[in-house]
Amino acid sequence: MTPEALARITDSFAAQTMMQTLGAELTEITPGLVRITAPILPGTRQQQGFGHAGLTFSIGDSAAGYAALTMLPLNMEVVTAEIKINLLAPARGDRLIATGQVIKPGKRLSVVTAEVHAEHDGQQTLIAILQGTMVPVPR
Amino acid sequence: MTPEALARITDSFAAQTMMQTLGAELTEITPGLVRITAPILPGTRQQQGFGHAGLTFSIGDSAAGYAALTMLPLNMEVVTAEIKINLLAPARGDRLIATGQVIKPGKRLSVVTAEVHAEHDGQQTLIAILQGTMVPVPR
Amino acid sequence: MTPEALARITDSFAAQTMMQTLGAELTEITPGLVRITAPILPGTRQQQGFGHAGLTFSIGDSAAGYAALTMLPLNMEVVTAEIKINLLAPARGDRLIATGQVIKPGKRLSVVTAEVHAEHDGQQTLIAILQGTMVPVPR
Amino acid sequence: MTPEALARITDSFAAQTMMQTLGAELTEITPGLVRITAPILPGTRQQQGFGHAGLTFSIGDSAAGYAALTMLPLNMEVVTAEIKINLLAPARGDRLIATGQVIKPGKRLSVVTAEVHAEHDGQQTLIAILQGTMVPVPR
Repeated sequence: MTPEALARITDSFAAQTMMQTLGAELTEITPGLVRITAPILPGTRQQQGFGHAGLTFSIGDSAAGYAALTMLPLNMEVVTAEIKINLLAPARGDRLIATGQVIKPGKRLSVVTAEVHAEHDGQQTLIAILQGTMVPVPR
Repeated sequence: MTPEALARITDSFAAQTMMQTLGAELTEITPGLVRITAPILPGTRQQQGFGHAGLTFSIGDSAAGYAALTMLPLNMEVVTAEIKINLLAPARGDRLIATGQVIKPGKRLSVVTAEVHAEHDGQQTLIAILQGTMVPVPR
Repeated sequence: MTPEALARITDSFAAQTMMQTLGAELTEITPGLVRITAPILPGTRQQQGFGHAGLTFSIGDSAAGYAALTMLPLNMEVVTAEIKINLLAPARGDRLIATGQVIKPGKRLSVVTAEVHAEHDGQQTLIAILQGTMVPVPR
Repeated sequence: MTPEALARITDSFAAQTMMQTLGAELTEITPGLVRITAPILPGTRQQQGFGHAGLTFSIGDSAAGYAALTMLPLNMEVVTAEIKINLLAPARGDRLIATGQVIKPGKRLSVVTAEVHAEHDGQQTLIAILQGTMVPVPR
């Protein structure tokens, strides 16, 4: 990827204050695949003390959206039209790792998926899968 | 609703640190319907400055889950099995209002929906709809 | 609705051979709402003898799609980008009634929902809800 | 797989009259993966002459459901709680091939996915992906 293509994504990510609140970081950007990791902070938990579904969703949705963005012209942004999450296991552990992928890029719609793993004592468990639709919009 | 039934929900909500981070509040609890409101804080925005989809999702999912919980015995909790969100418009304005409802309560599964409105200068706009499945689990 | 607007929908429906195979009929067309009914035929059942989820889906999806089409210019068709179905109860009875509605019409995307009821001895039971996205395409 | 485990699936499939109406066949059954193929018949088309989304859904949902069933005790059946389909391309060609897989088996819920390809002049195109939840029920 070109520096401009990378910067578009890192700049957009940096502008999402929600990602900072969640402590999330962009850890991989390749054409069609983006990875975001986030710690399970004291302030992002659900009632049993595990990571909140909103945390899992936020980084899964963002990883999927940025994966779609890697396949689009530089003058475009992307927004989520819809996305569905199936939660497989509690978000137990130290941090979450979301991996978004493009299944079908498109000028009007991009279909994407994401997986979210929880890392606990160095072991990763798949805790959620997402399937959604991203819409390109002019920047 | 009995004080015990209300307390189960307010206690569970208070234990979700994510809700505090988002500034969210429980504003209505009736059998089969729960409403949660949250401001669009400086720290919960996306790259264009609107409320983040993760904020919209978090309060929509929680409102739907607690709506399911209002229909379950007092010794039960509820977790999200899956939920889908369609985003209709940017989360523009001062605060979001999520209204969760039970479509079909059940001992094994509860089917729920939620609507999220954004309030801007006193006017409400529907910005998201959710449809999902909650699973009762022992407390 | 104008005769042209009605004919666009009845013609498109008549061209769907699947609807004939399922015995489905258009029973209501108003701006933003379309209703389709279908008998539970001997040839459209699942392994327990109830109506097949594919039948429920087919008429729910079509009702939602045509509901979207009622809101679009006459030179447009509509295709399903994605749709999700939650099945609430077995499709038990004589016939199914699917009611599709537009939640948010749009030039690029229309967000729709549908409900499907089963009619058994004159009584209707809600058996499925759907939530999806329709995409306008030139005819 | 044991003959009993295979027979449970082939018997259940044979009892689904919808599968016969669609001309569908079970073409692969292994633990965690089931494949179903169906021709695009004159009677299972949409208004533009391509395979109907209800056909794509029916075999995708069934392949995913039977994939879940391969992982369950012999005295169990499975029903779809919910499933979402993203349609990627028209169902153009001679036949469709649906491949269902288990992402997370479970006693209460199984999370599944499916892919549907269309075969046209010997070439396969991915036309749909599904993500859903199956519920085990006593036979």
